[in-house]
Amino acid sequence: MFIGIDLGGTHIAAGMADDSGKLLKKIYVDNSTKRDYREIIKDMADLCRRLSEETGIGMEKIKAVGIGSPGTPDNKRGIIIYEPKFNFRNIPMREEFQKHLNVPVFIENDANCAALAESVAGAARGAESSVTITLGTGVGGGIVIDGKIFSGFNFAGSELGHHIIVVNGEQCSCGRKGCWEAYCSAAALVKKAREAAEKEETVMLEMAGGDLSKIDGKIVFEAAEKGDQTAKHIIENYIEYLANGIANIINILMPEVIVIGGGISRQGQKLLDLLQEKVDNYVYKTTAEVPKTKLKIAEMGNDAGIIGAAMLGR
Amino acid sequence: MFIGIDLGGTHIAAGMADDSGKLLKKIYVDNSTKRDYREIIKDMADLCRRLSEETGIGMEKIKAVGIGSPGTPDNKRGIIIYEPKFNFRNIPMREEFQKHLNVPVFIENDANCAALAESVAGAARGAESSVTITLGTGVGGGIVIDGKIFSGFNFAGSELGHHIIVVNGEQCSCGRKGCWEAYCSAAALVKKAREAAEKEETVMLEMAGGDLSKIDGKIVFEAAEKGDQTAKHIIENYIEYLANGIANIINILMPEVIVIGGGISRQGQKLLDLLQEKVDNYVYKTTAEVPKTKLKIAEMGNDAGIIGAAMLGR
Repeated sequence: MFIGIDLGGTHIAAGMADDSGKLLKKIYVDNSTKRDYREIIKDMADLCRRLSEETGIGMEKIKAVGIGSPGTPDNKRGIIIYEPKFNFRNIPMREEFQKHLNVPVFIENDANCAALAESVAGAARGAESSVTITLGTGVGGGIVIDGKIFSGFNFAGSELGHHIIVVNGEQCSCGRKGCWEAYCSAAALVKKAREAAEKEETVMLEMAGGDLSKIDGKIVFEAAEKGDQTAKHIIENYIEYLANGIANIINILMPEVIVIGGGISRQGQKLLDLLQEKVDNYVYKTTAEVPKTKLKIAEMGNDAGIIGAAMLGR
Repeated sequence: MFIGIDLGGTHIAAGMADDSGKLLKKIYVDNSTKRDYREIIKDMADLCRRLSEETGIGMEKIKAVGIGSPGTPDNKRGIIIYEPKFNFRNIPMREEFQKHLNVPVFIENDANCAALAESVAGAARGAESSVTITLGTGVGGGIVIDGKIFSGFNFAGSELGHHIIVVNGEQCSCGRKGCWEAYCSAAALVKKAREAAEKEETVMLEMAGGDLSKIDGKIVFEAAEKGDQTAKHIIENYIEYLANGIANIINILMPEVIVIGGGISRQGQKLLDLLQEKVDNYVYKTTAEVPKTKLKIAEMGNDAGIIGAAMLGR
């Protein structure tokens, strides 16, 4: 058995999982107040004890605890190098945790944990390599090769959303111009739609009850399906940049599966249908005999972080 | 001891190397005439026997033979899936080779072999991960993680030169627009210089003896150093796109070292100096405590293919 902990800004979630990534139970504790890292870590250890009690699975049966944290962890040294929201700087997370519970502890970035969950138990299970991209407020991602997260020599990867697809292109929140995220986050899509709805006649405004700020990603996709020209144009553009970025990842890494998660992925098969032909055209051609990377929709939902963290110790 | 074979369009080269990648002897045979793959492979086996005789190292001391081939190999099945110049399609290279010599045989793409050579014995030795990019007629590359080539699930990677850095940008020879190669190959640099020299007053034309077609990469860099405004502008532009592509690879993979090879890399430290600050600025920022990817110039030269092939069996 493994325990996975997902450290979030509003709560800490912990779950007990078996070695296939099946989640047996999950519990939460509030984490919305600013406090010392030692208190946060004590709460994590308490969650582990509670999980053990409530499942009846003794702590001696827990092979490892995995912690998924925002920021840049260094699993070799067992520390979080940097996390601005919690104000973590080189905090000794493993050592502090083991003051409470004497178990092997693994630490990873939370987006990478989600990618590992998809690889072990989700859309990419069985694949020897996969890249999971998350289309949400930003564009995030994680690379899994042979069942292990690859986050680079400095554990700072993978910043897939900040690879440039248009040199000197659209302004990105990171300060640079032309990042994939500036074109393909859900936020970027919604921004384009709101800008257009201010200037053009479109059903999107009506669907949002006349309130520009209520136009969201779902409305843009639905309006495009209804034949609204403004929405169709925005979606076409969005898919064009998304397909270019996905093809870039394929041309660089040739993963067996690319998993698409985040809010935009709720479009499901419709999204894949829009993407597939473009991506096929954009991947560097050798011959039909070379197998193609598969595009899939993420399956793990909100539990991805916990399950991926649990699977770190596998 | 290991033998590495570099299959080229004009000759086949083979070398004997120790397990640190030190080349003890290399020999060649002509390969400029079109012929059946069986004859090519027989020549490879003959080269191995000759190496054994001429070095006095018996074939029983050879742990493995590695073959670096153009095209898309599948080392699992021991075949070359596709190579257009030699007209290879699913040829059973390992099986055919082992009819002549009963040794373990490994097969890899030649650009990936060069990347492995840099990782084992060249500019990236000691690094846990590295990406070698080659700035020549095209832009090629290879990824090495934990001493092993990562070429994806289909062995078709890494097409680094065909990742898009400007959606709908410059025409690339692959048929798409905006590939890194269309901006950063030596050929792209020279094309820009020749176009400019047709229209503008520049010392480059004089340096090329008045012959536009003699302007090469070296002349552009030298003219820029002399203060020629046209050349300076072209080099600045070239470095801008090169730094963007390198930062993309870092943001996606966070390798410990990026090795730059190919004709352009003859600029050595000058090239690194031009690149370093830009790349530093373009890499996604977390904190100064996260170590940075190092940029280095390739060290293995023409022997990279042979040595990398030899190291496949390590």
